[in-house]
Amino acid sequence: MLTARYAGHGSIWIEEHQADPPSAREVQIAVAYTGLCGTDLHILHGHLDARITTPQVIGHEMSGTIAAIGDQVEGWSVGDPVTVMPLSWDGTCPACEAGNVHVCHNLTLFGIDRPGSLQERWNVPAHTLVILPKDMPLHHAALVEPTAVAVHDVRRGDVQRGDKVVVIGGGPIGVLIAFVAREMGAEPIVIEIDEQRLATVGGLGIRTLNPSVSDQEGTVNEWTDGAGADVVFEVSGSSAAVLSATALAKVRGRIVVVAIHPIPREMDLQRVFWRELTIVGARVYQREDFCRRY
Amino acid sequence: MLTARYAGHGSIWIEEHQADPPSAREVQIAVAYTGLCGTDLHILHGHLDARITTPQVIGHEMSGTIAAIGDQVEGWSVGDPVTVMPLSWDGTCPACEAGNVHVCHNLTLFGIDRPGSLQERWNVPAHTLVILPKDMPLHHAALVEPTAVAVHDVRRGDVQRGDKVVVIGGGPIGVLIAFVAREMGAEPIVIEIDEQRLATVGGLGIRTLNPSVSDQEGTVNEWTDGAGADVVFEVSGSSAAVLSATALAKVRGRIVVVAIHPIPREMDLQRVFWRELTIVGARVYQREDFCRRY
Repeated sequence: MLTARYAGHGSIWIEEHQADPPSAREVQIAVAYTGLCGTDLHILHGHLDARITTPQVIGHEMSGTIAAIGDQVEGWSVGDPVTVMPLSWDGTCPACEAGNVHVCHNLTLFGIDRPGSLQERWNVPAHTLVILPKDMPLHHAALVEPTAVAVHDVRRGDVQRGDKVVVIGGGPIGVLIAFVAREMGAEPIVIEIDEQRLATVGGLGIRTLNPSVSDQEGTVNEWTDGAGADVVFEVSGSSAAVLSATALAKVRGRIVVVAIHPIPREMDLQRVFWRELTIVGARVYQREDFCRRY
Repeated sequence: MLTARYAGHGSIWIEEHQADPPSAREVQIAVAYTGLCGTDLHILHGHLDARITTPQVIGHEMSGTIAAIGDQVEGWSVGDPVTVMPLSWDGTCPACEAGNVHVCHNLTLFGIDRPGSLQERWNVPAHTLVILPKDMPLHHAALVEPTAVAVHDVRRGDVQRGDKVVVIGGGPIGVLIAFVAREMGAEPIVIEIDEQRLATVGGLGIRTLNPSVSDQEGTVNEWTDGAGADVVFEVSGSSAAVLSATALAKVRGRIVVVAIHPIPREMDLQRVFWRELTIVGARVYQREDFCRRY
């Protein structure tokens, strides 16, 4: 089989080798599709070299069918269409003991810290499997994992039917958040400065706003009859967006920190106090984020 | 009667004049005690001159007894011991319409924007009154208002029995938060750098920590078996404390922003994301914060 491994120094090696059979409690997946996440690009550009042991098979947004089943695995059959929740937790840290295994103190991710799906056969623990609907094309199903991120973000934002929701950042995750929010009956607006992204998002029927052209505070205030947005998602990673987020949220509104901010950011805590805002972090997903239907 | 008015330029004038009778829907209180809040000192030092119309009667932490009752007031009798919830809201803004009158877009405060209690007779709308227990000495009751602030903060922090709670800042509000948290069955620790305050807080039976002497992260980690604090209250207003707050909270822990931060502060949003923290603002109080019994 073919395997693509990140080998450091901006290079990926593709090699032919024999597939190992699945161990006990594992299944072997015939990988159909693997998407490339922003994190995969970060890896390729060397930004995670301190974390990654090379060579490493990357890739974690995937779909496939079960090709073989190891010992002590029940409830799965060869041919089942699946994706994977690519997390591994220790089960013993304080976060795990409190039931929050997805934010385990020692969380590791398949495709980063352990072998990922950029290989023709991928052996994974059976407990990571997520069954796919039979009628879902596998090239769509590779997007289940990033969509689960968006579902998790929207759940952390406690978005309600009828809510007016601001998404700052119109990249793939921002767009998926807008879609999930809309599926839940909320009205999203995506704030983005890149004209090409604005055109793509607008073409998908989502309202957009370019803050370098329009007054974002004025627009959101008018749109919400002076109240401010019910929920604001910070998905841009920009410093300016962190200040905008507090300015755009209503009294008792929620701000969800989705983007990774590698350095501390200036935040308007006076506004957090004044409007009794709530800011929540949202990281990866939980099993229900993969399985939820709206 | 005597009235103390802030007249600008760091001065307070005390004048003798006639008391006005209460208008309709008002009562007249014979003021027994008025405490001096940090805000009163800010006013005296001129920090709120842009907001305050001078001369203004300041003071809002008070106790007294009803001296006279205006027309259209029901349910109150002369002699009733009372304190006042010194807020006035418009009732029509989006925050009020959503039921959050205490964070009304056009909130005004008695003792800042309207006449306060540093006068022998104080006329207030009857709806601001809070009945005091008959057995509560009036010189204690002047502390009901700041205690209501602390009760509100602890409610915003969703403090639960058994929680380990960090209070950063050992001033009057910080100490009251620690007391209220302890009354609710939580275990508080107060972080403070001033030795005199540390001695006062310690003398009240509250655990303390001086971060210029001890490693606060190490201490809190050890105290919480490696989990981190359930709730952290930022009551110091310092920039360093904002960074400490995210470092000290457990996975899915809560941080309550109580202090006023007049300029944007650097916050570790990477940690907010990584540990799925929740940060909430807490401003003044609601009626239930005055009336709650533990």
